[in-house]
Amino acid sequence: MSSAAAAAAVIPFDALIEHWQGHRRLTRRMIERYPDEQLWTFAIGGMRPFGQLALEMLSMAEPTARGIATGEWETTFERTAMPKAEVLRRWDESTQRITEYWASITPERLSEHMVAFGQFPGRAYDLLLYVIDNEIHHRGQGYVYLRALGVEPPPFWER
Amino acid sequence: MSSAAAAAAVIPFDALIEHWQGHRRLTRRMIERYPDEQLWTFAIGGMRPFGQLALEMLSMAEPTARGIATGEWETTFERTAMPKAEVLRRWDESTQRITEYWASITPERLSEHMVAFGQFPGRAYDLLLYVIDNEIHHRGQGYVYLRALGVEPPPFWER
Repeated sequence: MSSAAAAAAVIPFDALIEHWQGHRRLTRRMIERYPDEQLWTFAIGGMRPFGQLALEMLSMAEPTARGIATGEWETTFERTAMPKAEVLRRWDESTQRITEYWASITPERLSEHMVAFGQFPGRAYDLLLYVIDNEIHHRGQGYVYLRALGVEPPPFWER
Repeated sequence: MSSAAAAAAVIPFDALIEHWQGHRRLTRRMIERYPDEQLWTFAIGGMRPFGQLALEMLSMAEPTARGIATGEWETTFERTAMPKAEVLRRWDESTQRITEYWASITPERLSEHMVAFGQFPGRAYDLLLYVIDNEIHHRGQGYVYLRALGVEPPPFWER
């Protein structure tokens, strides 16, 4: 393989955001299905309850889109319990803002090297892939919690 | 955003395979750390034991690389219990074969529309992203099993 081929980009800009938003739709369905009374209390093996994982996702998603778009990297480590309806409200709000930030990101910008939140260096697309991977990882954890609670999770392949 | 910008590809060909192989290295560490005696017996909430999930990953990874490279889509649904050492041996063998198949895949090929395993239509990069996502999802499930067994999983960010 030539180095030109190795460097050729393969995933289209609009496919990447659609891939991300598809995962966010699935996670939203997952939060919706989670029993409100267990969101901040139930956990397995000393891990965090799903409410905290959902807030971690929120603290990474929109802040990363904003960071890539504007160069301003700010987030929150607040993980205080709140009603599920409020988590969903924040989820929808951040989905909307991600769409707005995305509109000001160029394909060139996504290849730039930057430092996320003052401590994670990488190309913007790698930082974004990490955010998506982290969401899938913790959502997978949430699937086990849901099953342990006797609730059927949404199908993984539906986006 | 112009339609040209929306269609511009953003993730380089070599970054995509490195992203995938990084996840595969993490999953390998996870299998290594899993107690041999629980690999086919322990599960939570009626889900599958981790050994079966690992075999599912094996049945998707190399077969998808081969399918994209050659157009031949074949896999196995065999999920018979085997020693952890044999799972790891198959893992390493498939890592090697993925590298070989990848060498014959072009960036153009990754954008082609195809039907995986006779039933899953999509662009090759989307089919590949699904395989990676599925591995992250089930590995996240495995993290909960490991923690429930009192074993510390490998760090998620280490690839």
